[in-house]
Amino acid sequence: MRVEVLCTGDELLTGLTVDTNSPYFMERLVALGEQVARATIVGDVREEILGALTALGARADVVLVSGGLGPTADDLTAACAAEAAGVPLVESAEALAALEARFARRGIVLTPNNRRQALVPQGAEVVLNPNGSAPMFCLQLGQATAFFVPGVPREYRHLVDAEVLPRIRRLRSERPDAGFLAFRLLRTVGLPESHLDAKVAPVAAAHPNVTFGFRTHAPENHLKLMARGRTQAEADAALAAAEAASRAVLGSHVFGQDDERYAAVVGGLLLQRGQTVALAESCTGGRIADLLTSVPGASAWFPGGAVVYANAMKEAWVGVRAETLKAHGAVSEPVAKEMAEGVRQAAGATWGLSVTGIAGPAGGSEEKPVGTVYTALAGPGGTVAQKHRFPGDREQVRTFSAAAALESLRRALLETPP
Amino acid sequence: MRVEVLCTGDELLTGLTVDTNSPYFMERLVALGEQVARATIVGDVREEILGALTALGARADVVLVSGGLGPTADDLTAACAAEAAGVPLVESAEALAALEARFARRGIVLTPNNRRQALVPQGAEVVLNPNGSAPMFCLQLGQATAFFVPGVPREYRHLVDAEVLPRIRRLRSERPDAGFLAFRLLRTVGLPESHLDAKVAPVAAAHPNVTFGFRTHAPENHLKLMARGRTQAEADAALAAAEAASRAVLGSHVFGQDDERYAAVVGGLLLQRGQTVALAESCTGGRIADLLTSVPGASAWFPGGAVVYANAMKEAWVGVRAETLKAHGAVSEPVAKEMAEGVRQAAGATWGLSVTGIAGPAGGSEEKPVGTVYTALAGPGGTVAQKHRFPGDREQVRTFSAAAALESLRRALLETPP
Repeated sequence: MRVEVLCTGDELLTGLTVDTNSPYFMERLVALGEQVARATIVGDVREEILGALTALGARADVVLVSGGLGPTADDLTAACAAEAAGVPLVESAEALAALEARFARRGIVLTPNNRRQALVPQGAEVVLNPNGSAPMFCLQLGQATAFFVPGVPREYRHLVDAEVLPRIRRLRSERPDAGFLAFRLLRTVGLPESHLDAKVAPVAAAHPNVTFGFRTHAPENHLKLMARGRTQAEADAALAAAEAASRAVLGSHVFGQDDERYAAVVGGLLLQRGQTVALAESCTGGRIADLLTSVPGASAWFPGGAVVYANAMKEAWVGVRAETLKAHGAVSEPVAKEMAEGVRQAAGATWGLSVTGIAGPAGGSEEKPVGTVYTALAGPGGTVAQKHRFPGDREQVRTFSAAAALESLRRALLETPP
Repeated sequence: MRVEVLCTGDELLTGLTVDTNSPYFMERLVALGEQVARATIVGDVREEILGALTALGARADVVLVSGGLGPTADDLTAACAAEAAGVPLVESAEALAALEARFARRGIVLTPNNRRQALVPQGAEVVLNPNGSAPMFCLQLGQATAFFVPGVPREYRHLVDAEVLPRIRRLRSERPDAGFLAFRLLRTVGLPESHLDAKVAPVAAAHPNVTFGFRTHAPENHLKLMARGRTQAEADAALAAAEAASRAVLGSHVFGQDDERYAAVVGGLLLQRGQTVALAESCTGGRIADLLTSVPGASAWFPGGAVVYANAMKEAWVGVRAETLKAHGAVSEPVAKEMAEGVRQAAGATWGLSVTGIAGPAGGSEEKPVGTVYTALAGPGGTVAQKHRFPGDREQVRTFSAAAALESLRRALLETPP
């Protein structure tokens, strides 16, 4: 089965925007047992879109087209699709009703521009888009089944998962030559990619029927396993063996698998134990609180956090003593410890977690250069602090500081039976 | 001049690797006055590469090809280039000498595989690659001048800057029709994309020599202006006129331009006024603090923020009264106001900014459904609260809540002379 993707949008050709939609689809397609044969990006230019669609209809079996379905004049995809299929654009009653309901809910007037988003090629199957105003549609283009989805990442991702991939799976099931794949992503923290690679190399050599891939997604490193088989059972068995062997060498560096998110894993460990964590953040500036509260239901295990950027706030909210600040400076182990202990007490939490450091670009000194960070964890058994030296820019220092703090909590939770 | 890019590599089609090379080239090409017309990614498959190169030779003036120049069996680009040009592969004495010197310097034996990297299409111009073993080469393919560079980002970027772009500039200078470009990105908040379009449409009609583009990057919407001219001065003048007219209709919805970040703009307004802001966040859970502290030097205008997820923390850290919580519930205008006033006082800040709401997916009720959010701003002139109803999931509600809160502060600052 030949699958291709076509993205439209001038912003993808000026370097302003990097196409992260296609890799999202590509990864999921691989998990389904197929690989994209070609990816094409064209601008918001009628001749380019039309030419690309016509060529795709002649050589592909499945095409995912994204972008250019918005309400503005440079949104040309639906008109080009109709032209490539040799049909007129027609107003979809279903799409228009959804548009009207969407605008009514928000109390916004439906402009003629917006109404254009209900236009689809005649004969296309319309699929409503719960996250946006432009619907998805499916259209036969020559020999290819083409799926047209908006390019807004949230809308794109939902429609790919909920609508496009199940349809491709169905198309695939009708082909007798399609092989089977099994797929697992193991997520690690605390291991540089080269160490991950070195640990896993002997496992990969012992499982030649499984493809081992690596991906860095700071602060995480991921190991991707892909097994092929003539039957699903064969692929699953090969994957299970390779996964077990990989987990054996990686141990607790593996915090989760597939789509599991790090903050949700930490939250789950707290929930299992009926425990809570409160935060005192300086250089991470709310990053850890933001990560934790992105998890639905976080209120069960997260009472709150103090972003204590100024020293006065370190004193007022988490009880750091003025003498400690004066004697050791804000970026120091004693201050990190008092922050963790103070916030634990203020929130009546099981754990108090703190970070104080120099994220840069300014504020470094010879003694405490940019990247110097202290994390501390106060818990039922006492308080432990760690000193770190992170490389990179402000954003990187903040990312790695947040991860190091959360990782100290995860390791402490793993040592506490639920 | 029609410029296209072709990237080869299976890893770019499985989602394992995102192509960041092309955006690098695209941005620099735009600065030179040209825009890539199409970008294509193909796998390490002879027929795909050959087919793409042949089509490019027929329709492009300039092609940048990357990847597939390494020493392994799946590196097929040089052989395909020769085949597309109808010439044999020959060993370049210059490339071989550089390879031998490189390996000798490192004390490594040159294997037959490595020696393959000195093979280039007959008649190609060889350009040595100071950062790797595969040379770059330039080759006429049909009507197109094609540049072949390795895909390793460090090697790619150096060769693009030092070799490819100067050659494109030279080719361009030989064309009397090549125009000049000028660019501006105007960043807005608080205007849906369709309203932005509607406001700008008459301006676009009045400036036909300027391209108007739109981009959504929630919670921001961007207007992109691109002007063409026969001279740089002409392009600059056309851009300046279109930008002034656009700014006139968009007013203070435009918060910044080009690379300016929203949080940095808000921080800049505070800094100009010698003022500070403190935060009390509930449903945004530290998101606003994270945004503000991502700005270097935030400590000059941000003393701290309290993430008061639990009601007890709303009382302890920002002085919300138990009676207010009991009478109105945590998600209410009176609580939002007390949070803003309380944190302003606790931090001794010019402004206190608060958010309380229901981000979902759970916690909604008929009276206060998911997406109900109150923001409040306490300042020298009193306290103002706003009620919002945001659509979407937890992530969206948090994103738009943070933006609405910051926007209330930005508008208040604009009304306060520095």
